[in-house]
Amino acid sequence: MKKDYQAINPITGETLSQTFYESSFEEINTLVDLAHNAFGDYSRLNIESKANFLKEIAQQLILSKDEIVAQAQLETALPAQRLAGELQRTINQIHLFSDIVIEGSWKDIRIDQGNPNREPLPKPDIRHMLVPLGPVAVFGASNFPLAFSVAGGDTISALAAGCPVIFKAHPAHPGTSDLVAKAINVAIEKAGMPKGTFAMVHGVSNAVGGQLITHPYIKAVGFTGSFVGGKALFDLANNREEPIPVFAEMGSINPVFILSGALKEKGKAIAEGLANSITLGVGQFCTNPGLSFVLASEEADQFIDHLADNMNNAVCSSMLTNTIKASYDEKTLELSKMQQVELLGTGKADETKTSVSPMLYKTSGNDFLKNSILSEEVFGPASIVTEAASSQELLDIAKRLKGHLTATVFGTTDDLINHKDLIAVLESKVGRVIINNYPTGVEVCHSMVHGGPFPATTAVQSTSVGGNAIKRFVRPICYQNYPQELLPKELKDKNPLNVWRLVDGELTKTAL
Amino acid sequence: MKKDYQAINPITGETLSQTFYESSFEEINTLVDLAHNAFGDYSRLNIESKANFLKEIAQQLILSKDEIVAQAQLETALPAQRLAGELQRTINQIHLFSDIVIEGSWKDIRIDQGNPNREPLPKPDIRHMLVPLGPVAVFGASNFPLAFSVAGGDTISALAAGCPVIFKAHPAHPGTSDLVAKAINVAIEKAGMPKGTFAMVHGVSNAVGGQLITHPYIKAVGFTGSFVGGKALFDLANNREEPIPVFAEMGSINPVFILSGALKEKGKAIAEGLANSITLGVGQFCTNPGLSFVLASEEADQFIDHLADNMNNAVCSSMLTNTIKASYDEKTLELSKMQQVELLGTGKADETKTSVSPMLYKTSGNDFLKNSILSEEVFGPASIVTEAASSQELLDIAKRLKGHLTATVFGTTDDLINHKDLIAVLESKVGRVIINNYPTGVEVCHSMVHGGPFPATTAVQSTSVGGNAIKRFVRPICYQNYPQELLPKELKDKNPLNVWRLVDGELTKTAL
Repeated sequence: MKKDYQAINPITGETLSQTFYESSFEEINTLVDLAHNAFGDYSRLNIESKANFLKEIAQQLILSKDEIVAQAQLETALPAQRLAGELQRTINQIHLFSDIVIEGSWKDIRIDQGNPNREPLPKPDIRHMLVPLGPVAVFGASNFPLAFSVAGGDTISALAAGCPVIFKAHPAHPGTSDLVAKAINVAIEKAGMPKGTFAMVHGVSNAVGGQLITHPYIKAVGFTGSFVGGKALFDLANNREEPIPVFAEMGSINPVFILSGALKEKGKAIAEGLANSITLGVGQFCTNPGLSFVLASEEADQFIDHLADNMNNAVCSSMLTNTIKASYDEKTLELSKMQQVELLGTGKADETKTSVSPMLYKTSGNDFLKNSILSEEVFGPASIVTEAASSQELLDIAKRLKGHLTATVFGTTDDLINHKDLIAVLESKVGRVIINNYPTGVEVCHSMVHGGPFPATTAVQSTSVGGNAIKRFVRPICYQNYPQELLPKELKDKNPLNVWRLVDGELTKTAL
Repeated sequence: MKKDYQAINPITGETLSQTFYESSFEEINTLVDLAHNAFGDYSRLNIESKANFLKEIAQQLILSKDEIVAQAQLETALPAQRLAGELQRTINQIHLFSDIVIEGSWKDIRIDQGNPNREPLPKPDIRHMLVPLGPVAVFGASNFPLAFSVAGGDTISALAAGCPVIFKAHPAHPGTSDLVAKAINVAIEKAGMPKGTFAMVHGVSNAVGGQLITHPYIKAVGFTGSFVGGKALFDLANNREEPIPVFAEMGSINPVFILSGALKEKGKAIAEGLANSITLGVGQFCTNPGLSFVLASEEADQFIDHLADNMNNAVCSSMLTNTIKASYDEKTLELSKMQQVELLGTGKADETKTSVSPMLYKTSGNDFLKNSILSEEVFGPASIVTEAASSQELLDIAKRLKGHLTATVFGTTDDLINHKDLIAVLESKVGRVIINNYPTGVEVCHSMVHGGPFPATTAVQSTSVGGNAIKRFVRPICYQNYPQELLPKELKDKNPLNVWRLVDGELTKTAL
């Protein structure tokens, strides 16, 4: 018999009426076979058809916008405005990738022309480009039910690369997932894409994901979620007969350093902005700032007071799921009991069922360095501010940090120049360094890096947001002495797609 | 007490006089610490200094050319002319990477300009580039004592990327390794590079490599060698507390398909060329063709006869080591005993101590499909020709192939067009497809892909030869709202390095 499950409304704690069924072993095998069969045609699709398909997905999401937002609100407790914004971002991402498909420079097209007269050996004609890897398994995140879920960045960048996608719906928002999957399936139909280009599976047990990731036809994995989940998938994938790449974004504490000049100049404003960043979306952003660091001084004390005031006045609503709330409550209780940690501020939880209180803790640089628990992520609106005794201690703390998605520095120009060594250390630890701004808010653009050294991700050489996310799902191939007829359009002498190519070492759009 | 070892001359079987000492636990730790300390300065070196350092390595190799070739000849049994050619290739590689360091487009420089007036939120200024990963451990190959060894492609591309290198010398050619390491160290001295930029360790036991790869300061691994060796390093690296990327090139059988028109038109010439490719360098190239496939016909029979004649007339000298010879003898004996396999040709082994006989086997498509042992690599001058009963069987064989470095197709234009489906399948299995040429001979250029799906490599998204080899040792980072003073030169408004940059989605060299 099929396992069934229902979603829960975090606001009320009530079980929602719709029933979902865990995909069976046979169903998953059939879907992976279809994806494998679709790969040949889909991967060789002309670029206009692929770009139009992506745009059609965006169009279908717009048509179902109200329904999607309403359902997501029921399942995630996130406010309608935030969800509408997230859907817009999801649509913007799709348009970005549809543009990238056409622009084409991401394919790293290269031609080295042959020379039959070269001595001692003739030089062969060699042409290079990036081609799609094959069917990709994508695991959706709970905290972004749209932008990092069914039609989110992983799915869309894989489809843009030319890879069919099998999506594992997050069990916290199965109804939202179904609506978005329906929109994609309508787009597949309308754009005439091969059957098997996209499929979604449901499941509450780990078996579903495990079966997907160990299937020999799956060639890469995208994941956004917890460290435990991402690391488990990474290990499964590496222990396959044919190991495959796993692009898991697993969390981050996003350290923030506020330097002395900035504290003096605008400590109060930074405190307000930081509290806002900590509590935004009930602290459930990947780039939520869980740690901040200041050098002990009068201004630092004032800053900490302001931060505590702001946190005390903050009100948080329901978290995404009861499991997430329980983990938050447990970890904050543990922190509150620790001797080296002072509880500075406790905001309010609203009256909804799964709400939590924002929490601010304080510790010393010395205690922070001694106690590795303080460097562990507390998913939610909790943050620790550390007062370091010296610039050297601040630098020691930075050196001790593990891999994160972001690091942030607030400073005057003088501060920044005086702390070049600190900034250099931070750059070695993260994928994005932010000056005088908050880490929450991830701009979707060509230059974005949403990634970083382990344990922030399992793939330090990649990003899961921004134009380069597409490169996760391709591999290089070169064609030696191919006749023109057999070459892909990108590599034909005449450059019919008018794309940038590195010809004999020089970037050009000129035909040969 | 330190473990000592000596190299053996494969031609005579004699132990060479020089003694080498396995690097101790403490020595390796000291060298990794030095590399870690060198990383900051070396990674931020200006591009001219880095390019000049690489050129200085090439210069030092030229100065020691005769000595290096003579020592390599003693340790590897490879002829002086081949070794001189390999040294020239090594030097060419260094010049390629020195040019690439200056050209700079490999750094994927991207700028998305901010807009404080954007609604609903201001757009941040975000700038992206690839930065070096950190110290890299490189394991040299036995079969290319120069081009894939101490100053080979892995070392040079890592140094070009900005990563210090710790090189594990191959115990089959320790004297050659010492001479090349000396040349690099002189170049470090002359170019004023930081102490720790390069180091070499010796060892016959797996402990040396194991210690290197599990050291937390090592951030990536380059390897060329056996499947067993590469896979062991891959597993060690993934089981670290912080897993790191392993770029292991582990071998390949390089299937060759000769289509009917080509058999008719020039079967005899192809047979001669193929026998030459199989026996070249005693069959010890990564791209040695271990399998060839023809469709049963009169021309196919004639082709096989010609191939057998050529193999019968071939003479092979000593292999690289006695272990490699023993493995070759064992595996060819196993093949010779198999019922489904016919021994068609046996060439001669010359009188040197470690020489082997070239071997040609024949089997049917049906037997090939039934017997997976026939798809396993026999390192050396042995090859199996398979006569398929139908085009469909040829296609089935292609679909069954695992990942390889190369696949080759000989065909007339008509052949190629009639076998587009076969070529498409081959393209999905390898990093390089060659039309009407032999797989041995790897051109060092911007477009080369020397890589492929597992088990050819552990990193399907990379190449270990050619310009893009540098990308194995970098990761992306983005800088948000950085003041001009703090940005790397590549990302400053004025584009002082005059490099290609993707500005707001358009490639340009124009300053902002």
